[in-house]
Amino acid sequence: MSEQQRLTHLDEHGQARMVDVGDKAETQRLAIARGEVHMRQETLRLIQTDGLPKGDVLAVARVAGIMAAKKTHELIPMCHPLLLSSVKVDFELHPAQEEGQDAVVQITATVKVTGKTGVEMEALTAVSVAGLTIYDMAKAVDKAMRLEGVRLVEKHGGKSGDVVLE
Amino acid sequence: MSEQQRLTHLDEHGQARMVDVGDKAETQRLAIARGEVHMRQETLRLIQTDGLPKGDVLAVARVAGIMAAKKTHELIPMCHPLLLSSVKVDFELHPAQEEGQDAVVQITATVKVTGKTGVEMEALTAVSVAGLTIYDMAKAVDKAMRLEGVRLVEKHGGKSGDVVLE
Amino acid sequence: MSEQQRLTHLDEHGQARMVDVGDKAETQRLAIARGEVHMRQETLRLIQTDGLPKGDVLAVARVAGIMAAKKTHELIPMCHPLLLSSVKVDFELHPAQEEGQDAVVQITATVKVTGKTGVEMEALTAVSVAGLTIYDMAKAVDKAMRLEGVRLVEKHGGKSGDVVLE
Amino acid sequence: MSEQQRLTHLDEHGQARMVDVGDKAETQRLAIARGEVHMRQETLRLIQTDGLPKGDVLAVARVAGIMAAKKTHELIPMCHPLLLSSVKVDFELHPAQEEGQDAVVQITATVKVTGKTGVEMEALTAVSVAGLTIYDMAKAVDKAMRLEGVRLVEKHGGKSGDVVLE
Amino acid sequence: MSEQQRLTHLDEHGQARMVDVGDKAETQRLAIARGEVHMRQETLRLIQTDGLPKGDVLAVARVAGIMAAKKTHELIPMCHPLLLSSVKVDFELHPAQEEGQDAVVQITATVKVTGKTGVEMEALTAVSVAGLTIYDMAKAVDKAMRLEGVRLVEKHGGKSGDVVLE
Amino acid sequence: MSEQQRLTHLDEHGQARMVDVGDKAETQRLAIARGEVHMRQETLRLIQTDGLPKGDVLAVARVAGIMAAKKTHELIPMCHPLLLSSVKVDFELHPAQEEGQDAVVQITATVKVTGKTGVEMEALTAVSVAGLTIYDMAKAVDKAMRLEGVRLVEKHGGKSGDVVLE
Repeated sequence: MSEQQRLTHLDEHGQARMVDVGDKAETQRLAIARGEVHMRQETLRLIQTDGLPKGDVLAVARVAGIMAAKKTHELIPMCHPLLLSSVKVDFELHPAQEEGQDAVVQITATVKVTGKTGVEMEALTAVSVAGLTIYDMAKAVDKAMRLEGVRLVEKHGGKSGDVVLE
Repeated sequence: MSEQQRLTHLDEHGQARMVDVGDKAETQRLAIARGEVHMRQETLRLIQTDGLPKGDVLAVARVAGIMAAKKTHELIPMCHPLLLSSVKVDFELHPAQEEGQDAVVQITATVKVTGKTGVEMEALTAVSVAGLTIYDMAKAVDKAMRLEGVRLVEKHGGKSGDVVLE
Repeated sequence: MSEQQRLTHLDEHGQARMVDVGDKAETQRLAIARGEVHMRQETLRLIQTDGLPKGDVLAVARVAGIMAAKKTHELIPMCHPLLLSSVKVDFELHPAQEEGQDAVVQITATVKVTGKTGVEMEALTAVSVAGLTIYDMAKAVDKAMRLEGVRLVEKHGGKSGDVVLE
Repeated sequence: MSEQQRLTHLDEHGQARMVDVGDKAETQRLAIARGEVHMRQETLRLIQTDGLPKGDVLAVARVAGIMAAKKTHELIPMCHPLLLSSVKVDFELHPAQEEGQDAVVQITATVKVTGKTGVEMEALTAVSVAGLTIYDMAKAVDKAMRLEGVRLVEKHGGKSGDVVLE
Repeated sequence: MSEQQRLTHLDEHGQARMVDVGDKAETQRLAIARGEVHMRQETLRLIQTDGLPKGDVLAVARVAGIMAAKKTHELIPMCHPLLLSSVKVDFELHPAQEEGQDAVVQITATVKVTGKTGVEMEALTAVSVAGLTIYDMAKAVDKAMRLEGVRLVEKHGGKSGDVVLE
Repeated sequence: MSEQQRLTHLDEHGQARMVDVGDKAETQRLAIARGEVHMRQETLRLIQTDGLPKGDVLAVARVAGIMAAKKTHELIPMCHPLLLSSVKVDFELHPAQEEGQDAVVQITATVKVTGKTGVEMEALTAVSVAGLTIYDMAKAVDKAMRLEGVRLVEKHGGKSGDVVLE
């Protein structure tokens, strides 16, 4: 099996370990992840207007996503702790275009670090927890919401260089 | 606006709060959530066979999901702490049926509690973190994996009674 | 020394312990705590208007206070873990009344539980962390802000009955 | 608005973010924060003498403050994680000078780091949590204690240079 | 295999799960665990006399043990969260009886709960972390210290009734 | 008292502090710790064969140990946070050699960092929590298991140079 085809967090006996990054260089790294919360049109309307223009739902989800990025290494067992230098979580609201379609909140998280490993997992965690928080805040009116398409969008810095998937 | 149509974690000024469950009854509650990690067929093959029959990747993801369920109230800002009585995380592996299709690991989390609020968020969190852990363990070979369809499947107990969505 | 005059978290040798509440009754309890962040008038103006009517600064501080209430037993060594049933954090903005006076953000936290111990510490922790978060968000423009008067205001339920200090 | 007058943790839309420190230099930084717990003279006497010369109350509060400094980035949403190189928490006991005056425990926290951001928040958090711990340990005898004047005293290192407020 | 001989945290496929305690009764439970830190006689002397009669080393280790008991369910993957009603950590210092023998600090942790599962793990965790803290505080003078005999001593309450091992 | 004979986490008044490592060099450091879980022969047999060749008990204990290493600074009060670059936990199973002897699972943890302090505590914590997890997973069949001999085995890098104790 080529080096490229090994699952790096497993050793030669298939046992989990935190892969050794001791010899990697400290470089500036950035990752962008994205995902979408699908919901009923009425639910999106409530998120948009409840109380205030921007809505406390998204403010809370943003804080939750940022704080979760900092907890990534406590959640994902083989992740290395990292000194994140920046976390940003943005939302785009897409009303349903026609009857029967889902309304969508798109979540994009951008994470930066100067360190020895990339921050894909931090960006993906921020998206997921921000999305779950939206679910939590709106679940009284819409239990069928779904978090879809949580994925890496871009990644820069480090040995694997620039990865642009979207 | 009907009671049913309020976002319960926002007060009358649209400000976030942890909703008051003090007067709710302690009942037995259960929630089942589900989601799928989409990946290349080759990636699924590596997860299945790396080292051992059942593979350490899924064992690690299972532990991560179970531990994350217990952390839900630390991740989702308005969630109540709960004394979970049971958490279970199961995986089903679905190889690609034909060329060009995704292979899929389906994750199902079942959470139980005797308490004053439901455990949807705990089940959804377990699924999400288990899914992200699979991503982390396999990302060296497949950065384009996606976590899809994180959703509530069933919910029993509490005021809203039985909800079966799938 | 009378029972009333013992520091309950110290045993008879003056050594710290988590006091035994095993025989106490589970009752509904509520605590309200309060504190003030003092700042320059200009700082208050920035908090009020930055971006939006209510301002993201206070939304972030509110989330921080609520989440901190849930972490109280991890921060205060002898505190018991509790299943908080409600946490609410409110702000009142008091502009300086005359030249040279401080502007003030008053923070009030209300915490409820059904349990064996009171929630004073949870309410005081919510106020403190909300206040520190305001400091953090505004410290680039005003390093001399002060968190003043963090105190218990009311307490209901439990053996000591109703306590109203303000 | 001048650069100096922006709330740095808000972006141009007033939305919260963890400000990007990726381009800042790693320098040695130090912050000193201070605050006072006001209490009845009798309460101070119990803290001083309960069991032992130095008293376990202050030993516990010191540990709580040091451990809280390390948790700052988990409590204050927009704070960056940092590798603290030193944390020290000191207490000075000031008995009431005359009838009717408060007795006071003054808390001073000194935090050092080699990093890209300052440690004001870490020092302020250590003071606050040490103060709350004193409240917790003595609240059975004095519920009216107050945590006053939590403030930054000194700050060295970093772009803003030396700040001495006291 | 008899019921008694199953590893309860594994399901019928040998996969880990948090065992379901939903149908168990809430009863008062108590566990006592013990362990010993072995060290050079000179190290024990430093712990005893450094600064003060009782010594801050043991005060810090006691706080660490108590706080760790509350974190047990975050450390041990299949442990249930519990509302501990009491945690106590005691130390006995045993100087070496003769030349060449180890000096010993014996650690005993007593944990109580009213809940659906026992608190063996909480007591064992308190002992272990208190012991590791002693190691940390004294490691500059004695790197060869060992934590020995971490074990359950007594257990009361719950289906398995009274267990007394020592 | 010689420098070598001071407990570094206590100041000149015997009070706890996080020792200042600000002036220490960042070097590559490694620590290896070890410990043994003693159990009945029958218990070892269940751990080995329950369900699968390698057994989920050890997979879960491995994950628990690795995650605990990352939490060391939250458990041991005076420990510095560190960016661990690698954590590995290995098990060796030693069946009882003759009637009446204990069976043993030996746990070895290897931790690496590039930083200002050593990682003894991280390695010792990984061993302890992995050992406690084995206890937890098997306690339904063997409550008399003991965690023995938790100790530092090797340490490299840093001012104290190479230490090999075993």
